Amino acid sequence: MKRSVFFISDGTGITAETLGHSLLAQFESIEFDEVTLPYIDSVEKASEVVMEINRAADADGVRPIIIDTIVDKSIREVIAGANGYMMDVFDTFVGKLQAELCSNPVNAVGKSHSIANNKTYNIRIDAVHFALDNDDGARTKHYDKADLILVGVSRSGKTPTSLYMALQFGVYVGNYPLTEDDFDDLRLPAALREYKSKLFGLTIDPVRLSAIRNERRPNSPYAALSQCQKEVRAVEAMFNREGVPFIQTTHASVEEISTRIMSQVGIKRRSLQP
Amino acid sequence: MKRSVFFISDGTGITAETLGHSLLAQFESIEFDEVTLPYIDSVEKASEVVMEINRAADADGVRPIIIDTIVDKSIREVIAGANGYMMDVFDTFVGKLQAELCSNPVNAVGKSHSIANNKTYNIRIDAVHFALDNDDGARTKHYDKADLILVGVSRSGKTPTSLYMALQFGVYVGNYPLTEDDFDDLRLPAALREYKSKLFGLTIDPVRLSAIRNERRPNSPYAALSQCQKEVRAVEAMFNREGVPFIQTTHASVEEISTRIMSQVGIKRRSLQP
Repeated sequence: MKRSVFFISDGTGITAETLGHSLLAQFESIEFDEVTLPYIDSVEKASEVVMEINRAADADGVRPIIIDTIVDKSIREVIAGANGYMMDVFDTFVGKLQAELCSNPVNAVGKSHSIANNKTYNIRIDAVHFALDNDDGARTKHYDKADLILVGVSRSGKTPTSLYMALQFGVYVGNYPLTEDDFDDLRLPAALREYKSKLFGLTIDPVRLSAIRNERRPNSPYAALSQCQKEVRAVEAMFNREGVPFIQTTHASVEEISTRIMSQVGIKRRSLQP
Repeated sequence: MKRSVFFISDGTGITAETLGHSLLAQFESIEFDEVTLPYIDSVEKASEVVMEINRAADADGVRPIIIDTIVDKSIREVIAGANGYMMDVFDTFVGKLQAELCSNPVNAVGKSHSIANNKTYNIRIDAVHFALDNDDGARTKHYDKADLILVGVSRSGKTPTSLYMALQFGVYVGNYPLTEDDFDDLRLPAALREYKSKLFGLTIDPVRLSAIRNERRPNSPYAALSQCQKEVRAVEAMFNREGVPFIQTTHASVEEISTRIMSQVGIKRRSLQP
């Protein structure tokens, strides 16, 4: 059975969507049709949303789920008039926090996910540029500034992970690809040796690696399973021999890889959460 | 007054942190000391967390706030024994959803922020590589594949925005820098004309732009306020003349810029939320 779900916010919608998606993931037998509606910041927009929800209710034959983080009470009341099952996040928690903190909420929209201060913003953007400048072993001379250097074979997930960590945590992450030339003696490449304490390895199931490489360069020697097996075996032997911590990326999202590394290495985020 | 806050999860911690940060942002008068503890997936780890919370309670002289998304009940019960004010997200909402959906939760950890399926994963990673390959006007030959092409002066936020949109929404975003050479006749550069419907402009307050550029190249002509004023004036005139929609990035986070563009242009995400 299909069930429509609306994540509604007067801000970016990121909180409503993130929370809502986590909650719904606990109900695997139901097929959800998820719609995020950000910037619903007027009674007029809210009225349109109500019509959209009611249409979905008619089409589905069952009332949609509404998960909202709307701060403005008058807008929230309009949404509450829709034919849906509404779970209001701020209403649920802000009152409790108010009592516990003995402090009044500002009830202002967009307090989260806005630029808290320019310093935090600059750190994140600097970190993104650092990741780009130090991507794929392009340069190694800035490694002294790096918080972390990801190492692994081509297409093991280094670049997306370094960019996610930059954007999300403001940390400076370089990455360096290990290729066949590096595997002869199972020693770290010279450029990496003095930064050994900053290294973190990514590894991946050779079958999955081959599939990923085949999307990029179909039927190439580079994508052949035997090649992928050889590289992965060599890189894991190197990590073990050199004592470089490493993580399997095969079944992990960029979010999981990044948070596991942060947690394992004990790096602190440089930027406050946006 | 300082108040310690713990975001605790047996998964990545992203949901607890995102929600918690949004809620706390409504209480501006209090200084929060926020700690995220992901992967608390055993009774042993939970017991260590309890000790950490109790230490913070002693140090602060007031019990910390605990916001958790722990799925496993036995782990949650350990945390509940800490000297803190606990707001349990799943306990609050999952029961309600269970009744409304007439379906039992799977109570499995890490259902959100894991790779839902390889297709979604591939789309996001492809989108990141697309953003990198089409960054800063490096190539324009793939613009037919782009969902969106961001245009603006140097350091107006194009690259971080295109990467965030790739990672978060799996959309294909190129970006093209507009420089003085492009401003002579206020017409779009030739490379962009046939993709006019995909263009979205970023603009920025010249004072802020000058500050950002000064961090990159201190006291350069490139960073001079007069130069920034000239470029911003020209680019906005071009956007207006050519009918290119644009957005102010001055006080906006990457999240806000991205979600506003998605919402304004009406692009749909290609990837499901991770």
